[in-house]
This record gives sequence, C-alpha cells and structure tokens, in this order.
Amino acid sequence: MDELPKCEANYTQLTPLSFLKRAASSYPNRTSVIHEATRFTWPQTYHRCRRLASSLRSLNVSTNDVVSVLAPNIPALYEMHFAVPMSGAVLNTINTRLDANSIATILRHAEPKVFFVDYELVPRAREVLRLLVDPTLISSLPLVVVIDDINSPTGIRLGELEYEQLIRLGDPDYAPPEVRDEWAPIALNYTSGTTSAPKGVVYSHRGAYLSTLSLILAWEMPSQPVYLWTLPMFHCNGWTFTWGVAARGGTNVCLRNVSAQQIFRNIALHGVTHMCCAPIVFNIILEEAKVIKNLSPVNIFTGGAPPPPALLEKIESLGFHVTHGYGLTEATGPALACEWQREWDALGNSQKAEMKSRQGISVLTMADVDVVAKDTMRSVSRDGKTMGEIVLRGSGIMKGYFKDPESTSRAFENGWFWTGDVGVIHPDGYLEIKDRSKDVIISGGENISSVEVESVLYRHPMVAEAAVVAMPHPRWGESPCAFVALKKVPEGGDSGGVSEEEMIGYCRRNLASFMVPKKVEFMEELPKTSTGKIQKFELRVKAKGLVVSEKKEIVKSSKSNKKKNKPVMKRDGDRSGGYGEHILAQSRL
Amino acid sequence: MDELPKCEANYTQLTPLSFLKRAASSYPNRTSVIHEATRFTWPQTYHRCRRLASSLRSLNVSTNDVVSVLAPNIPALYEMHFAVPMSGAVLNTINTRLDANSIATILRHAEPKVFFVDYELVPRAREVLRLLVDPTLISSLPLVVVIDDINSPTGIRLGELEYEQLIRLGDPDYAPPEVRDEWAPIALNYTSGTTSAPKGVVYSHRGAYLSTLSLILAWEMPSQPVYLWTLPMFHCNGWTFTWGVAARGGTNVCLRNVSAQQIFRNIALHGVTHMCCAPIVFNIILEEAKVIKNLSPVNIFTGGAPPPPALLEKIESLGFHVTHGYGLTEATGPALACEWQREWDALGNSQKAEMKSRQGISVLTMADVDVVAKDTMRSVSRDGKTMGEIVLRGSGIMKGYFKDPESTSRAFENGWFWTGDVGVIHPDGYLEIKDRSKDVIISGGENISSVEVESVLYRHPMVAEAAVVAMPHPRWGESPCAFVALKKVPEGGDSGGVSEEEMIGYCRRNLASFMVPKKVEFMEELPKTSTGKIQKFELRVKAKGLVVSEKKEIVKSSKSNKKKNKPVMKRDGDRSGGYGEHILAQSRL
Repeated sequence: MDELPKCEANYTQLTPLSFLKRAASSYPNRTSVIHEATRFTWPQTYHRCRRLASSLRSLNVSTNDVVSVLAPNIPALYEMHFAVPMSGAVLNTINTRLDANSIATILRHAEPKVFFVDYELVPRAREVLRLLVDPTLISSLPLVVVIDDINSPTGIRLGELEYEQLIRLGDPDYAPPEVRDEWAPIALNYTSGTTSAPKGVVYSHRGAYLSTLSLILAWEMPSQPVYLWTLPMFHCNGWTFTWGVAARGGTNVCLRNVSAQQIFRNIALHGVTHMCCAPIVFNIILEEAKVIKNLSPVNIFTGGAPPPPALLEKIESLGFHVTHGYGLTEATGPALACEWQREWDALGNSQKAEMKSRQGISVLTMADVDVVAKDTMRSVSRDGKTMGEIVLRGSGIMKGYFKDPESTSRAFENGWFWTGDVGVIHPDGYLEIKDRSKDVIISGGENISSVEVESVLYRHPMVAEAAVVAMPHPRWGESPCAFVALKKVPEGGDSGGVSEEEMIGYCRRNLASFMVPKKVEFMEELPKTSTGKIQKFELRVKAKGLVVSEKKEIVKSSKSNKKKNKPVMKRDGDRSGGYGEHILAQSRL
Repeated sequence: MDELPKCEANYTQLTPLSFLKRAASSYPNRTSVIHEATRFTWPQTYHRCRRLASSLRSLNVSTNDVVSVLAPNIPALYEMHFAVPMSGAVLNTINTRLDANSIATILRHAEPKVFFVDYELVPRAREVLRLLVDPTLISSLPLVVVIDDINSPTGIRLGELEYEQLIRLGDPDYAPPEVRDEWAPIALNYTSGTTSAPKGVVYSHRGAYLSTLSLILAWEMPSQPVYLWTLPMFHCNGWTFTWGVAARGGTNVCLRNVSAQQIFRNIALHGVTHMCCAPIVFNIILEEAKVIKNLSPVNIFTGGAPPPPALLEKIESLGFHVTHGYGLTEATGPALACEWQREWDALGNSQKAEMKSRQGISVLTMADVDVVAKDTMRSVSRDGKTMGEIVLRGSGIMKGYFKDPESTSRAFENGWFWTGDVGVIHPDGYLEIKDRSKDVIISGGENISSVEVESVLYRHPMVAEAAVVAMPHPRWGESPCAFVALKKVPEGGDSGGVSEEEMIGYCRRNLASFMVPKKVEFMEELPKTSTGKIQKFELRVKAKGLVVSEKKEIVKSSKSNKKKNKPVMKRDGDRSGGYGEHILAQSRL
C-alpha cells in the first residue's frame, strides 16, 4: 500500500498560488481589489499578476532571486504577493516605517534583483540607494521600479521603470511554471528585532499555504469576506491574509494611510466584514469612536501585543468583534488564537474580555505548542501560574534565517522553535503570555511578569501607555520600574495630574506587593520601534540610570516588601534566571 | 534559501492524528462523543484511543497491516478512526449494508489482521467467516473482535475478544509512534461499484488531513459543532468529518439507526448544529416533517446524488440549511461544493434551490478541477451546455487502488483523475453534473442527460423515485426509457393513478422533445445498491427487454420525434459516444 506512487493527479505541491488560480476560475464576477476609484475582479487580478510575472522574467529575474518592495497597502503590493512567486522569485516586503539606514542594511543582506518603491517613498529610496552604492563595485544596485499612484499618476520616477508599464508589457498568456517543490521559498521577511540586527525569515510555499488555511479556520473567516487592509502587508505577509482573501474569494479594500476617518469611511462604503490590526489601532479607532451602524459587526483579528481587557471591552462596544491571536514572524503570523468557548457566553463583559485577552490555543496546522521549563525541558504544569518558555512545532514555522545557519540552529534547538516568550498554561488548555523571556524581572529569585504589572497600569483611567522593565537592585538583583505616559486631557479639562506616589499606591492596591514598581517615571510618550512596539531596550537603559540616584528609597521599599512577600515567594517556578540567557531577536506579530 | 533544511520543528508530517492530540489538549472539558447514556470528553477519547492502539500492537498488528471493521455509527467506529492509524495500521471500514458474500470478497482482498464486528452484525460476520475458511490453509482468517453494546452489554461474542476489554487491557501510557511519512496509508475504502468488483481505495495521511481541512472550510463549519452521525462513517470515513469534528473540538452524536424519529430526538436533545447525508435521507426526514423549533437551523451537507431542487426547497422550509457537494470515494469525499454566492440572496426560493442543486466549485485543497472533452483533451466552453468528463487533480485524490496497478494507472491518465461523471461548466464557474459517463443516452447522435430527464420527473407531484436509462433503438441507437415509482397514497385517499401516457405528456410539456422518454415503466420501488443508489445497471437490462415487445410503438414515436427534433439536434457536443468507453467503477459519495 505504501508503494502506490505519487503522481500529478494525486500529489500537487502546496502553494498559495493555487488560491489565485482558483479564485479566477470559481469567482469570475467577484471584486478582488478596491482602492479608491480602482477596482479589479479576480480574473483581472490573475491576469495582471501573470503579466507582471512575465515582465519580471524578462528583467532576468529567475528562481530564488529576491524581489524587494517598499510600499504601503496598495493594489501593487497585493498583486506582488502572487506575481513575484509566479516568476519563481522570493518576495521581500519591507517595513515602510524603517529609516533609510535600516532599509539599506536589509537590501545589503537580501541582495534583491529588483526593488519596487511606492512613489511617495521615492525620497527615502533615493537615500537608500546612495547608502548602497559601493564605489569598489560596478553594479551593486538592484533595478528600481517605481509604483506610481494607480488612481492619479504623478509621473514621479526613480530610473526608467514603472509598475503599470511592466504590467502592460507583460505577456498576457504567460503560464507560470508549476511549483516543483512545496519546500521552495516564497517570501523573505525581516524581523524588527529590538536588540540585534534584523534577521531574514524565509517562508516556504508549503508553510505559507498551510498557515493561510490555519488562520482562515482560526478566525472562521467565511467565503466572500470584505477585508480592510489596516494591517500592513509587510507584517508576515499580512498575517497570511494576502493569500487568504484570495482563498476565500473575498474583496481586498486597500488603504494607503490608516486613520480612524479612513477606517470608518471604508467600512461604510464597502461593507467591510474583516480587518486585522495591532491593539494600538484600537486607540486610533477609539479617538473617532463612531458606533458602526446598520452593519453586521466588523471582525477584528488582533495580535502583536496582549490587548488589555479594558481596551477590548471598549472596542467591542463600538460594534467590532475581536479575536485575539499570538504569533511571530518566524511562525508565519499567528500560531495561537483565542478561540471562543461557548460556555463563556454566560460571563460578564469584563470577564469575557479577560478570557479574550489570553493568547489561546494552537491554530490547526501548528502541530504542537508547549510551555517548557528550559532547564528541565519539561512541560510546566497547567495551573495558569507556573511560567515557562513557549515553544512551537509545525508546518507554519519558517524554513530558517537567511544566510544565518547559526541563529537558525539556535532557534530550532531540541526539535522545537523557541519563541523567547514566557507564558503559562491555564487548566482549560489556554496559553497566556507573561513576557518576553528577556523582559521577565527576577526580583529576589521571584519571576515578575512585566506584562502583568503593565496590564494593571493600563486599567488606571489616566494611563495611555505603560511599560515595566527591570531596574538593577543591590539587594534583590532586579526590581520593577514603570514608565508611564498619561492621557492627554482636552484643553480646559481637569488635568487629573497623577503623582508617582499615587500610582504606586494604586499598584499596591491591585498587585501582589513584590510586583509593585519601586519607581514610576512619567513620559510624554514611550519610545517605540518602527512597527509601533515599545522599545523596552531603551527604557532599560534609562532604568539603569535611575538606580543610583534613588538607591536609598529603593532599599527602603524593598525591605518593607521583603516581609510582606515571604509567603508569596514560596511559589514554584524557575528562579535561576535561565530564561534570560535565551534571547532571540524574534519579533512578535 | 533553498538549502535551509527541514527539521522536526518546521516540517511536521500532515496527519489527522494531530487533530485528536490537539483536541485533548485544547478542549479538555468538551464532550467528544455521545451515544445515548455514554459520554466522553476529548481527553477521554484520546486516552481510549491510545489504549486501543496499544492493544492492537499487542495483537501483533504492525505498520501497514489492515484492520477491518463492520459496524454502524457507534463510538467504537469513531475511535477506530484514530486508534487504528495510531497503531500504524490502515483502517478498513466496511459498508454494513453489504451481504456476506460481498464482505467476504472485500476481506479476501484486504487481508485484514483483525476484524472488528458490531454485536448486531455477528450473524452476518459468522457467515462471512464460513465463506472465508479455506480448507487448504491453516489460518486464513483474521482475528475477530466483537464490539458489544456500550450502553447495555449483551454478552454476544464471536471468539474471545471484545472491544472494551481491549481498551481496558491497553497501556494508558502508550505513545503512538510519530507518523514518519505523510504519504503513508491511513485508510482503505472499498467502492460500491455497480458494474464491476469493488476496488480498494487507499488514502494517505496527507490526503486525509488536507481533505479534512478542505471540507471544514467548504462547509464553513465553526468551532464546537454538535455533529449528528446520519452519514455512515464507512462512506469515505464520513466524508472526513470523523477527523473533522476532532479538528473543530466538536461533539459527535452517534446514531445506530437512522430514522426520522431518532434524528429529530437527537437534534432536540443535544442541540445538533451539523449533519451530513445523501438526499435520500431528506425523504426520511420529510416523512416525519417536524419543523425544528427554538433552534438555529441545522446545517446539512449533502451529496451522493444531485438533490432535486424541489426536494431542497422542502427540506429547507423545515429549518435545515443545505450545502450541496459532489465527490467520490477516490477524492476522499466531496471535491466540489456549491458555495453560496451572496448575490443569490435576492433570488426566489425555487431559483435558490436551482443554484444550490448544482455541484459547485472545487474545495480549497483540490488543486484543479476541469471538464474536458475526452477526444480532444480540451476544456469545454463555460456555457453551461457543452458536456465533458469531470477531471480532478489535487492532494485529496487517493493514492490509488490497492493491489490494482492497472486500474490505478487508468484512473490517473494524463495527469488527471477521471471521475467518469459528465458535466458542464456554467459561465459563473460552477459545475453541474449531467450524468455518469455510462449513463449518458446517445440518441441520434445527440447526448441526453438522464439526470436532466429525471429531475423533470421528480418535479411531478406523484413521483417518488425516477431513473432514466438508455433503451436500444433500431433507428436512433438509443432512446430514453423512464422507470418510475409513484408515491404511496394514504389509505382512503385519492389514488391519483398516473398512466404512462399522462407521464409522457407531462414530460413533453417540460422537456425538449428529443429528451422525452419513449417508454415509462411503473414499479413499486426502484432497485438499489447497498448504499441506496439506484441500480441503473439492472434497469438497463430491463430496458433491453422492452425494446422488442414495444418495437412498433417506439419506431412510431421516434418518427414523430425526428421531425420535431431537427433544429434541436444542431447543438454542439460530443456525438461519438466516446464517454461510453471510459467506465470506471468509481462510486459517487
């Protein structure tokens, strides 16, 4: 029975490219892409992608070459998710928030043959190219193609080539070569590591295909969704929904700039049913705070940072229905999703939000997820308390890091992918993240989850942003230090000014005392990476400076804590600080 | 980039066994299986399957051995879908409607090591064993294990072993070996071919896994379904929903006997949300004809025969929501599904039913579906009229036929799987089946779809069953002959007796005249296979007999048709009868 052979009829390579071909054939009348005045159907999108792929071949792009692109969520970026692999090449989408220097670093590493640039980003690209020019080499630069505004072309160029021109010149009858090996690379995504140089995460066709199915299933995204592109496509290829919307025969509503006004306008105009975003976008939406009227609730898939329950409650009250996931670039987007359990229907709103703010259970094609104590390599007990590192295994995990065998093998130690995130498993099987391993604060041998402290701070009515990091401590090794940005108060309103003392008192009322920050530092705004993540690295440097000047006060408060904490400190858990050793520059979604 | 190696962390073999492990971990409190007084949770089901797998190993079952089972939809049959492959063996579920002779033929071919038999089927199994005994061999018989009634054990045995005993004796800590190759066999299903000996269709772990995901997606089955087992699990492993319910953390409601009363009782008792069945079960449901009250609509996935639109309308009016699919044993269940298009919402009820009665578009992991003219190997035009053979390609297609390389290579000619079914493609990309290739009636060079004629007959208020086959004709080669069973009229009611003449007149008013049956034969009930399919083979034999005795009448009516048909006969289409040459004993769902 084992000998029955594989053949063309029964063994087809798994690739997201099949989704586009199927959409063109099965949904011939459906709208594929909308961007302001521009509209395409699925057969048109398929046709355009084939032309572009053929043009790329004419430009000497061949199998496994890299094609980079720097663009916001416009139709061209969507089409390139199919057209580039249809030419045999590997798509490298670049974070548009990066500065020229970081982009140059990526291009130096990725060595793309072609570099597509949105017309608005031409000035930055020009700077990048300047940085790339190597006087010792004759041709170290990629071929540049500008993507002009599809709705009202500007004529801005950087070199000769323009996107629509490549589509026009492409062969309409180009037949993309069949994918011969599903393990072949399809995409290259650089992590936005906060502590080290970005790493190039490589996805296979197989991994992309299976992750796409996983996420449609986890989100229960039905046929014919109307998907609003609030999440940048350069984040894990839009958490795979670039391919997923084609799989579902849906409509992509492109969005050049994410603003509350644009979000609400597009929802109303196109009957948006689905969108993805980091919790930070909730704040943007809440600023406008319109209730979505006369429409079914819009489904939001969120991740990238644990959404504070209070924020979840607020956003759902506007008519959004939120599903929360957890993942990393290395896992092709979300690897866990907080699947709703029917018995939670009976809970109160804030309890529901608590449930929803957990990271959840593995998506379907992730073969295994566990939380392990790294020293013993054993699973932690499912008590919702014992912390360990979250490890993953499955077809959605990256092929590895491009040109970095050392980091690759370190990430794949012992048959698992090590996320670098620390979490617990609740008795109901749901995982909850407590921290990045490097963000765990180890105070007097006790592990403190900075996320837990932050989530209490976020519940304070005046707190807009909060981050807690370790502050060196002469006696306890480390102690928690909070950085807080207060909400902006409307002019003429009560400033509601909160003092450090008040904030510490508030924490004392809401946290085990050993977890109470010994220091609260107020800032106008917390420092963030280009992807909107708070830069704890920078805050840690700041916290290091604080210890000297506040030594006395800290010693005093630690002493008083010592007594109170005694019984609490009997908790189980890794006290060795072992987690701290394993720091990967992986990026959460 | 191509060189990044596969490892345990990023390349896990695709197997439905992962669904059970995940369900046990992620849904620890959910009910997995209900059968009357019996109830298990997912961890319990996982635990029981591991014990059974371990017992099978103790009974010397090893990799790629066959384990056969003859049982209705009881918990044991469900568990064996995981336990048997967990022991490394291949599951062979046998149609319980087969007679002893047919079962013996299957067992002689499959050579199972162990043969599980439900206690109610022990008499038949005893007969099977008698047929199998070969006096020239010492041990030609499989080890028999009786599955006693789990709710109230009867003590009936056939040999020494009983199912629950194997579970009790199994090692609770048995760790199933990892699936080392996703192409390894998981199941062996014999087709119920109507014209030739049954063939053993082999599925791989990969094919089963991908088909399972496909069908959850096609049906949009959400998390936590309550699934009623109206469809026999021995049909393509319950169209993959044996594995699919585990993937979704749902509840399996087992059903020993399918009756309207049992269906309605279980729907009300357990809040059933999903069930599968052939359209014939609609008739059973309609006999009881209760409207499902106080519940969300029950979702039905149907296939196996094209459901007449009128029947669809009736069943939906009771509170069922029907999705229609098309497939074959060789395609691991449904390969097409009639995905609902939002624009159809605006249609009237009967138009909606017309749309729904089409077979639809390919499920997501089926790489390709086409309708081709076999003589030219070209796709037919998408006009909803030109007929061709339906061909499939994709990961859901079987590995091949067990011990039958010749049939296997014939089925896989030219890189496609040939379904033997004849269909058209509508301009909207939706396929519609017109016939089994061998059921096409070729009259005067004109292809007549027997399904089309049947569907008109079914719309007649007095028709309960109808089948149309070719009747040899001296002048036209073939002409259509209808066999009809009329509805049973309640005692004392108007008999509504319909004459042959009236029925032909009715057809004349509703069909192109060349398609009108030249002969209508009334029967009490039409002959059916063990799986409830009408045996056209038998009817064809009957029709052959009719031609002589009715020769005169036929020649006359053909003459009159000749004139009328002239313009119609200019239609395009394959007139060579080429379809008739390619007869595979494949079984539709």
